[in-house]
Amino acid sequence: MEEAPRIEVCFSPLSLSLHQDEHDVVVMVDVLRASSAICTAFQYGVERILPLETIEEARNYREEGYVVAAERKGQVVEGFDLGNSPFHYMKPGLKGKTVAMTTTNGTKAIRAVDPNKTLLIGSLLNLTALCEELKKMRKNTLILCAGWQDRFNLEDSICAGAITADLLLDKGFVSHHDSSIASKYLYLSARSNYFGFLRSSSHRRRLKALDLNEDIKYCLTTDKTEVIPSFENGALISGSRGTAS
Amino acid sequence: MEEAPRIEVCFSPLSLSLHQDEHDVVVMVDVLRASSAICTAFQYGVERILPLETIEEARNYREEGYVVAAERKGQVVEGFDLGNSPFHYMKPGLKGKTVAMTTTNGTKAIRAVDPNKTLLIGSLLNLTALCEELKKMRKNTLILCAGWQDRFNLEDSICAGAITADLLLDKGFVSHHDSSIASKYLYLSARSNYFGFLRSSSHRRRLKALDLNEDIKYCLTTDKTEVIPSFENGALISGSRGTAS
Repeated sequence: MEEAPRIEVCFSPLSLSLHQDEHDVVVMVDVLRASSAICTAFQYGVERILPLETIEEARNYREEGYVVAAERKGQVVEGFDLGNSPFHYMKPGLKGKTVAMTTTNGTKAIRAVDPNKTLLIGSLLNLTALCEELKKMRKNTLILCAGWQDRFNLEDSICAGAITADLLLDKGFVSHHDSSIASKYLYLSARSNYFGFLRSSSHRRRLKALDLNEDIKYCLTTDKTEVIPSFENGALISGSRGTAS
Repeated sequence: MEEAPRIEVCFSPLSLSLHQDEHDVVVMVDVLRASSAICTAFQYGVERILPLETIEEARNYREEGYVVAAERKGQVVEGFDLGNSPFHYMKPGLKGKTVAMTTTNGTKAIRAVDPNKTLLIGSLLNLTALCEELKKMRKNTLILCAGWQDRFNLEDSICAGAITADLLLDKGFVSHHDSSIASKYLYLSARSNYFGFLRSSSHRRRLKALDLNEDIKYCLTTDKTEVIPSFENGALISGSRGTAS
C-alpha cells in the first residue's frame, strides 16, 4: 500500500531548520496580513509580486519605477503607497502590474524557504482551493507559519490547523509532529468564531490599536478566492483558478 | 493600581532567547519524564540532584562514586542504574542521597536558563502546590517547555497551559504572548482526559513503543506531591512542603 504523505506544521521561521528534508511542498501562511494581501492581489488581477526582505530593497525598486508595498509593525512605511492590507490590492489600477513587497514577517518567511521546494501561499481566504490542490498533489507538505518576529502566533497556527484537519480526513495525509496535532486542536476550538477566539491574541490587539478591525474581519473570512499563489524564479505568481473581474 | 505580573509560555529551549528579560522566575516543565522524575525523587527523600548536559559528565560523576541517572531517547543509557522514570526514584536507598542526572531534554533545558533567574521545576505531579507558590511570589514568570529535541511537544504545553489558566484566574496574572494563550486553550481541550488527548502525541507513541504506558499514566496524574524543586548553586534542591515517609 502506498504510504500516505505527511502534513506538518512549523510554528515560526525560527524552527524551520528542524523540519528540513521532511517535505517537498511548503505553504507559507501569514493570515494578518501578508498572505491574505497576496491572495487578494492576485484575485484582483495583479500579475506578479516580488517579495523583498528589506526596506532598502523596496526603495531601490521604487526608484526603478515599480509599484512598491512596504509594511512594518502593521503600518505602511513612510514614502510608500501600499502596505499589507488586502483592501490596498482591490484597485483596478494594479491589474496586470508587478508589485514589489516587503512586510514584517511574511516576505521574510518566504525568503527563508529552500528555493528547491515548491512554495505556495495559504490564508483563510483561499483555504478550500488550497486544500483541494494539496490533496491533488499528494506530496509531503509543511505549513510554515510566518508568526510574529519569530514567535508563535495564534491566527497562523489556526489557519495551519484548518489545512491540517482537512488533509488528515480519511487518513489521506498523516502528521508525526505535535505542532501539527496542536494546530488541529486550536483550529477545532476556534472554527465556530475566529474573530471571537482571536479577541485576546497579541496581533489582533496590536492591529486593533491601529484601527484595523475591518482588515482583521476580512482576513478571517474563508474562501473568498480560488487563487493559489506560488513562488517561482524569485516572484510570486497566481496559480489562479479564476480571477475576479 | 499595582500592575499584574506576567505569566508566559516558551514552547521550546530554541525560543528561549526571544523571552529574555521578560521574567524573574522560570518554571522548567518536562512532563515525560524528567520534571516528573525530579519531583518524585524529592518527594521520596533524595537530597540533591545535579543536572548534567552530557553522558561524558555523567560518566565522570559515576567514577567519583555518585549515584548517576542517564537517559537518552527514552531509555536508560547502558552502564547506568537510573533513567528518568519516576518509579526509579521511589527507592528507600536513595533517601538523603545526591543524584547526578542527564536526560535528553529536561536537564539541557535547565542548563539553558540564565543562572540569575529563580528556576523551579514543574510537572502535573506538583501542579497545585506550584501554582500556589507562584501566586504567592507574584513575579513575572516564564514556563519553559523542554519539548523534544528543540521541537514543540503537547504534554509540556498542556502542563504549561494548566499553570497559565490557574494564574490568569481573577486577573491575578496577565499573558501578552499567543503561545501562552494557545497553551491555555490546549489545556482546556485536554483536561478532562490527558491520557486520551495525548494518544496521538509523538512522545507518547515513542514511549509506548518502549512499553512505558505505566510511566505515562503516572506522569499525567495531578497533585501527587507538594514538592517544588528549585535550582540553586548548580544543584536542584527540594522546596518541599512535606516529603513522603
